[in-house]
Amino acid sequence: MNLIHSLEDIQVPTLLVDEQKCRRNIQRMAEKARKDQVILRPHFKTHQSIAIGHWFRDFGIDRITVSSLAMAAYFADAGWKDITVAFPLNIREMDLVNELASKAKLQILCQHPEVVHALIRELKYPVEGWIKIDVGTGRTGLLPEQVDEIAGLLNLMEQARHIRVGGFMAHAGHTYAGGSDCQMEKVHEETIRILGGLARHFSDRYPDLQISAGDTPCYSRIDHMKGVDEIRPGNFVFYDLMQAMLGSCMTEDIAVAMACPVVALHRERMDAILYGGGIHFSKDFTSHKGGGRNYGQLARWNGEGWEASSDLSWLKSLSQEHGVLHCAPTDFEKLGIGDLALILPVHSCMTANLMGCYRTLDGRIMDHFTRSKTRMKLT
Amino acid sequence: MNLIHSLEDIQVPTLLVDEQKCRRNIQRMAEKARKDQVILRPHFKTHQSIAIGHWFRDFGIDRITVSSLAMAAYFADAGWKDITVAFPLNIREMDLVNELASKAKLQILCQHPEVVHALIRELKYPVEGWIKIDVGTGRTGLLPEQVDEIAGLLNLMEQARHIRVGGFMAHAGHTYAGGSDCQMEKVHEETIRILGGLARHFSDRYPDLQISAGDTPCYSRIDHMKGVDEIRPGNFVFYDLMQAMLGSCMTEDIAVAMACPVVALHRERMDAILYGGGIHFSKDFTSHKGGGRNYGQLARWNGEGWEASSDLSWLKSLSQEHGVLHCAPTDFEKLGIGDLALILPVHSCMTANLMGCYRTLDGRIMDHFTRSKTRMKLT
Repeated sequence: MNLIHSLEDIQVPTLLVDEQKCRRNIQRMAEKARKDQVILRPHFKTHQSIAIGHWFRDFGIDRITVSSLAMAAYFADAGWKDITVAFPLNIREMDLVNELASKAKLQILCQHPEVVHALIRELKYPVEGWIKIDVGTGRTGLLPEQVDEIAGLLNLMEQARHIRVGGFMAHAGHTYAGGSDCQMEKVHEETIRILGGLARHFSDRYPDLQISAGDTPCYSRIDHMKGVDEIRPGNFVFYDLMQAMLGSCMTEDIAVAMACPVVALHRERMDAILYGGGIHFSKDFTSHKGGGRNYGQLARWNGEGWEASSDLSWLKSLSQEHGVLHCAPTDFEKLGIGDLALILPVHSCMTANLMGCYRTLDGRIMDHFTRSKTRMKLT
Repeated sequence: MNLIHSLEDIQVPTLLVDEQKCRRNIQRMAEKARKDQVILRPHFKTHQSIAIGHWFRDFGIDRITVSSLAMAAYFADAGWKDITVAFPLNIREMDLVNELASKAKLQILCQHPEVVHALIRELKYPVEGWIKIDVGTGRTGLLPEQVDEIAGLLNLMEQARHIRVGGFMAHAGHTYAGGSDCQMEKVHEETIRILGGLARHFSDRYPDLQISAGDTPCYSRIDHMKGVDEIRPGNFVFYDLMQAMLGSCMTEDIAVAMACPVVALHRERMDAILYGGGIHFSKDFTSHKGGGRNYGQLARWNGEGWEASSDLSWLKSLSQEHGVLHCAPTDFEKLGIGDLALILPVHSCMTANLMGCYRTLDGRIMDHFTRSKTRMKLT
């Protein structure tokens, strides 16, 4: 297999995935979880791929997390039997909840009595009901001090014929805002304190309450994850520039890269114009150290894969299909019209979602869930 | 037809399109162009839909602009016979250039000798070659003062057996950065001065050089567009919040809105959590007048369509599938769990690209080009 040749037939922006790097990333997280006897229930919203999901099986993973009922259906159809939908339940999709519950062990999030009432009315198969707790992110979930509301929800769920009470779930998304200085151990301890405290508070009546936490920055950086029953990080399978900036990974761990044709060169300002824009990368950005936005960083092909180039060669702006890659002079000299530039994405989940499939280094195509048309046409 | 009922079966984030508003927007632009005898060659990268493309036919449109060769193929297959690909030619796709040139009048952009040499080597059918000029945006294109390079390109194109020299093309994208204070007449006059000046400069040898300009803010706001041969605005078919802020349209002209299920409510901070995130809207944002980011604005259903609600009810943050809608108290009171919130998007092109199809107010599904899988698997 000639790897360089395998890129040569690429014509359009293409998302490359390095299977070896992915497997290394999965293995590292799986070993840490196993050492501390914590269940790893990876979030599959990052890759959204049945083919890539298979790689997790080799590390003993059989429970997964997804972010929509439609994504749960995609993975259930591929044989995954234990699925958490880590998103507040959308009661407009009770048909799909029933379909999923009829064929898989399904965990869903309840944080409003209206949701539990809808489940009581319409549920035909068993599900496990979890309560989302806001441990400081401020996005959604009940606040830890809303003990009466939590008691009311637990009580209501207990009355429902098909709901088994699961436990408390949190996503400490504030680890993203905290930057590389964020004290991940403290976030983890605070999550345990809050969720564990609630589980103990209700333990007389509900002795089996589980606690589930999970975000990639926290569980990539801390060594000991004891104290929670399961973790649900997702991005770690690929990582990306944002995670590297947060200290979750090294740039060499980033397992996806975009291959973008060079369509114009502007020597006077050291800019290469790439076929690769906001509809390929997404408009997520980080700050570049020199000021301004950073939508991606140049990588270089080393014959077997890619490695990051200088951080002085970065995507400084994106329009719909154009990317403007500002280059260090030595990088600019290597780019010609019609060449492929390899770019490490800022946010791999969003880029993968836009690209809709992957290409391995030996040229195989890996599928990706397609969301919108399936469900929009189902109605 | 009961319009309210037509929304009731929506289960997941769905992009609604108001056909009447689209037709009004198309008609207004078509009439302005006709009055000044300027060709309207609308950019179809905004809607990317064969079905919506049909609406343009009713206003006499038979020439279109697209942003990729794959998008050109999608529209060529639907019977469009005169297509400009307003993107620097990607020479890795010469197979598709030939396929397109064999069945449609194809205009392509050349701004490097390497591109023309590739065309000379591989082109089997006639195309029209245009030169992209940078009229001040600073993204790509030759600078007006690069007269020698332009002369060299024209000369090279003339030698190519299958290239007919077309003219000069510009996109004054700096009208977006200029905000509502941007002097659109001045941008238009400057574009004419630069492109017209180049056409006159080379008129002895090339008496038929055309000039083509186009962006939605400029050609929405100015009344007289004389002086260019054709315009290529695209966004005007839908408009969006960004265009309304630029003064290109009124909010009542915005012809697309997202319908998003409400999945959680946080009364203490007047936030509704929507099923609708960055993978539905895109991460494009404007600034909210109160500070912070604005990813969309709440609209209200009036029985026949939507109208903007208060600008104090806006999407203040997006994650992958969640949207956080901060609400004015009167708007918050109207939202219940499981309701649909209607949101005017910040950037309709990006939202439409992510959603992948549309639903009309009477429940018909309008198709959308799907880019990635088609071409990534072609290789």
